[in-house]
Amino acid sequence: MGLEVNILGCGSASPSLRHLPSCQVINHNGNLFMVDCGEGAQLSMRRMGLKFSRLRHIFISHLHGDHILGLPGLLSTLALCETRGEVHVYMPAEGVELMRMMIAQFAHSLTYTLEIHPLKIGKALIYEDKSLTVETMALCHAVPAVGFIFREKPRPRQMRGDMVEFYKVPVSQRAAIKAGADFVTDDGRVIPNSWLTADPLPSASYAYCSDTIYNPGVVQAVAGVGTLYHEATYADDKAHLAAQRGHTTARQAGQAAREAGAKQLIIGHFSSSYIGKEDVLRTEAEEAYGAPVLMADEGKVFEV
Amino acid sequence: MGLEVNILGCGSASPSLRHLPSCQVINHNGNLFMVDCGEGAQLSMRRMGLKFSRLRHIFISHLHGDHILGLPGLLSTLALCETRGEVHVYMPAEGVELMRMMIAQFAHSLTYTLEIHPLKIGKALIYEDKSLTVETMALCHAVPAVGFIFREKPRPRQMRGDMVEFYKVPVSQRAAIKAGADFVTDDGRVIPNSWLTADPLPSASYAYCSDTIYNPGVVQAVAGVGTLYHEATYADDKAHLAAQRGHTTARQAGQAAREAGAKQLIIGHFSSSYIGKEDVLRTEAEEAYGAPVLMADEGKVFEV
Repeated sequence: MGLEVNILGCGSASPSLRHLPSCQVINHNGNLFMVDCGEGAQLSMRRMGLKFSRLRHIFISHLHGDHILGLPGLLSTLALCETRGEVHVYMPAEGVELMRMMIAQFAHSLTYTLEIHPLKIGKALIYEDKSLTVETMALCHAVPAVGFIFREKPRPRQMRGDMVEFYKVPVSQRAAIKAGADFVTDDGRVIPNSWLTADPLPSASYAYCSDTIYNPGVVQAVAGVGTLYHEATYADDKAHLAAQRGHTTARQAGQAAREAGAKQLIIGHFSSSYIGKEDVLRTEAEEAYGAPVLMADEGKVFEV
Repeated sequence: MGLEVNILGCGSASPSLRHLPSCQVINHNGNLFMVDCGEGAQLSMRRMGLKFSRLRHIFISHLHGDHILGLPGLLSTLALCETRGEVHVYMPAEGVELMRMMIAQFAHSLTYTLEIHPLKIGKALIYEDKSLTVETMALCHAVPAVGFIFREKPRPRQMRGDMVEFYKVPVSQRAAIKAGADFVTDDGRVIPNSWLTADPLPSASYAYCSDTIYNPGVVQAVAGVGTLYHEATYADDKAHLAAQRGHTTARQAGQAAREAGAKQLIIGHFSSSYIGKEDVLRTEAEEAYGAPVLMADEGKVFEV
């Protein structure tokens, strides 16, 4: 259980040998969800041992090349690997037609059914299974952009092994008890649920905010999230570029996380101008957040 | 002088951690010419220390993703690096419209003038400067594809330093003498050109043939070339796949080079099924070529 965030790329648009363009893979119970797909994403999956066969959902935040240009190659490779069944791509509506043309040209012999879901810029539930939801939220960038919030559904109550044994609770009734039911013994005695179970573990939640300026609407949308990934392209010294180009400074990312009450902050989407001195980004983010901040890096895996 | 062939990628379509998709950079007197542009090409340029500012001409052989998907990102990066002047892309005509749309979406704020030249499938002179020409030739692949032949123009005769000194040839006359003129001394004596110069160094020529089946027309088109780069996707054991998918076996590549009289053969575009055992490709190519064969590999530089 829980969410595992794999960082495949956390650089900004200008490519460098230090970072790759944006890409993450969220692992939930062995199901892989990709968020953004910069050039080289498919190789990074191989490098990190993430199986193509487990990847069924790909979420694209916006239509800048450093967030999407790995997609045609990845979709082609999924076909070369003889993927079957369905693969779903979610992307801002404006890009869907062009992506269909690119796929027709560069990934034409698909072995699987590809569903492209156009996204509106705003809050919407776009994915749901029995234990996870994914929602979009509006970001504020130079082009229409969405963030994604992954939320585990409330987990079942935890069975107390000692009590289960004591009352000889049959296996057949355990699911109902985990869901909150009392237990009635063979001789008609009612054992209250609270004796048999403990509170569930808290559910994980994770929000991905890149690319965006600092914006109160974004803060509100991610309020209460467990872990926030926020872009932090520049430090204070280049705050003017952040404003010009629709990006966030590390300090603003820290502020957003603090205001949103996020329990953990990961920053990324680092400008190549900070190669060799990314500590300044961490420091400024921590000053605003008031607690330690995690730095994204290619190959890193965060349990959230 | 001469041509320097930089291998940026020499794998086939199915990506692996062993090879990158097709990309080469030909260096002629410091001017860089890219041939094919698979995903990741721009990072490989950085890795090999090849300067974006020297790259003005990009030649695309065909419209399969593993030969072209690095192009939108590269063109975008050239803009981020504030490239000025002209950049020329040459590609099969069928792909031009889609490429224009991709560039409009993913590389929209160009700082330079981008000229896209549609190529017909056949023999044509597509580039010429004072010391180099580039020609296309038809390949035989699953989709329309061209090869490229780089030819240095005949070099000037070489001045013999001892004779220049002996006859006190003034600097002002040396260009004419290199071009073949005799020299007349101050006292009217005619010194024949053959006394003053030696034959020029042979001009380099280089042909790029990928992707293609073995085909006599291709052999004829590259006849007499100095160095031939030929795809060799499969060994004999997968000759049926080569035929099915429009590719060449290593043995056929060797045969083509021998029949064309190429003085040197480089093979590449290796299927990922030969990782760890690529020597079989070399061996089979050498058996047919009758001489040592050079293996392409990422980061290798061949002087031709």
